[in-house]
Amino acid sequence: MVPVPVADGARDALALPDLAAIRAARERIAGFVHRTPVLTCASLDAETAARLCFKCENLQKVGAFKARGAVNAVFSLSDDAARHGVVTHSSGNHGAALAYAASRRGIAAWVVMPENAAKTKQENVRRLGATIRLCASNVAAREAACADVLRETGAVLIHPFDDARVIAGQGTAALELLEDVPDLDVVIAPLGGGGLLSGTAIAAKSLRPGIRVYGAEPANADDAARSFRSGRLEPLPATTTIADGLRTTLSVRTLAAIRAHVDAIGLAREASIVRAMRMTWERMKIVIEPSAAVPLACLLDGTLDVRGQHVGIIVSGGNVDLDRLPWQL
Amino acid sequence: MVPVPVADGARDALALPDLAAIRAARERIAGFVHRTPVLTCASLDAETAARLCFKCENLQKVGAFKARGAVNAVFSLSDDAARHGVVTHSSGNHGAALAYAASRRGIAAWVVMPENAAKTKQENVRRLGATIRLCASNVAAREAACADVLRETGAVLIHPFDDARVIAGQGTAALELLEDVPDLDVVIAPLGGGGLLSGTAIAAKSLRPGIRVYGAEPANADDAARSFRSGRLEPLPATTTIADGLRTTLSVRTLAAIRAHVDAIGLAREASIVRAMRMTWERMKIVIEPSAAVPLACLLDGTLDVRGQHVGIIVSGGNVDLDRLPWQL
Repeated sequence: MVPVPVADGARDALALPDLAAIRAARERIAGFVHRTPVLTCASLDAETAARLCFKCENLQKVGAFKARGAVNAVFSLSDDAARHGVVTHSSGNHGAALAYAASRRGIAAWVVMPENAAKTKQENVRRLGATIRLCASNVAAREAACADVLRETGAVLIHPFDDARVIAGQGTAALELLEDVPDLDVVIAPLGGGGLLSGTAIAAKSLRPGIRVYGAEPANADDAARSFRSGRLEPLPATTTIADGLRTTLSVRTLAAIRAHVDAIGLAREASIVRAMRMTWERMKIVIEPSAAVPLACLLDGTLDVRGQHVGIIVSGGNVDLDRLPWQL
Repeated sequence: MVPVPVADGARDALALPDLAAIRAARERIAGFVHRTPVLTCASLDAETAARLCFKCENLQKVGAFKARGAVNAVFSLSDDAARHGVVTHSSGNHGAALAYAASRRGIAAWVVMPENAAKTKQENVRRLGATIRLCASNVAAREAACADVLRETGAVLIHPFDDARVIAGQGTAALELLEDVPDLDVVIAPLGGGGLLSGTAIAAKSLRPGIRVYGAEPANADDAARSFRSGRLEPLPATTTIADGLRTTLSVRTLAAIRAHVDAIGLAREASIVRAMRMTWERMKIVIEPSAAVPLACLLDGTLDVRGQHVGIIVSGGNVDLDRLPWQL
């Protein structure tokens, strides 16, 4: 089930970007996102017996790689399509990223969020200029609210990951990482809905066919690892992981990309995610969110073996509530 | 009282490095320290009505700019002088930096620390390979312990800031900053003993005579602001600031450098230091220690006016106890 890569197109359920589309995305988003630094840390190298390079998307606009995909999607729209604005459902980083992208293009954005979404996240999206539409905290209510906005406004839906333009944008982080560090043996990205990992894998394997690409998933939300093995979507009834960005399940599109281009998926224990997060704060002096700590947690747990290798890790984001740190709960 | 710049020499109480010495330091330390990134943050620009560039020395080896000065001092020693190792007194970042520098050169290091120094700081220095000599928590005991080590071992004392080689090393951060962002109007550095500010001011004014250089000091430890005005050392009986790296007082040497090259000193309130620290964590996603937040705190307090200017800020360090964050005390 390897899809035919196409440059663009959100309508085709299997459309995926190719390297050219990722390069085009990079040109398109250049003025609106940071070229984030790649950091190293001798003490984490010693801890993992590998040479690690961290591509710091926590230092990206809106604090997450999501700015890349959202900006690419919004600036890929024709003037006519963009005229009525954009809409998405997300209580997390994609909502903020879409608000940011829309404000940069000067169009309206609506973000559907559950009523119980944290006040700080709501304020953040509002500060970026989007309109929040609150709904009950379940999938049916969320889809109904999205449909309402689409009907009322004529806005375009930009899905958080099931969209070839979004995936192309997310792939630009790996493009930059491999420019800065061409001789990597392995690239690892966190794995939730699969948008980041799909874009990362397409970019990395296209540039360097011999590179290995790994996904990193919480053991408590291992739908992607199951789907990767079985070849069909295996959504879980409920997931309880501190890595709140990785609770979503794959789509047909991202499963296809991952089956085609990813070599392995590691699983991380909850305690290891917290430990990896704290180690990163203490030793690297950067603020990362639990989801961003999952690749390092997989190395600590030994579910991905990179000993002796030169390893790139996509640090996905840094949005955390500083009043509720996981080692203090 | 402008001292004659000399390239080196810790013995002359007024010796200061010139630009050539800072450039030589940069060559000397290149393989042992990070070239740290310069980050920007649109939301802090909006908050301060300025364009801010942050030179991230919190991402430096041992988590602080101190690695630069310590490495330069240790690698400036002749083989004969280095033979018996180095010693310093510091419960903070300079102790760790000296331990790191000595381990890189393969010589012994002793660090005199007060008995009540935090266990994590002691472990950190020990992990870096230095020997800790504990003493009572007062100046007389500290000096006696240092003298003991000097006599017993023949080690060389490397002072945390009152040393031309250390100052030259600290000045390399500004050198890199002005290479990356040549058109800065202002550079601001935190101000404790004055080593970082002296090196920063000499480098910046030598490269760009029209640039303004500001120091940033806690209002609760304003000995440098007083000394800057009066022209003589004005040590305070006791200082109670959360910015633990800035409690020290100037030396004759650093006061001379600052009087000669610094344009103004801003003072920050304690509450503003905590606010600036938290804002930096939340918006920039980097871990900075209270001392490193003092420049931004001065902008928030309006004691340094940089509105409309292009401003470089030296972010001095990121060593904090994650179990005791100041907004949770």
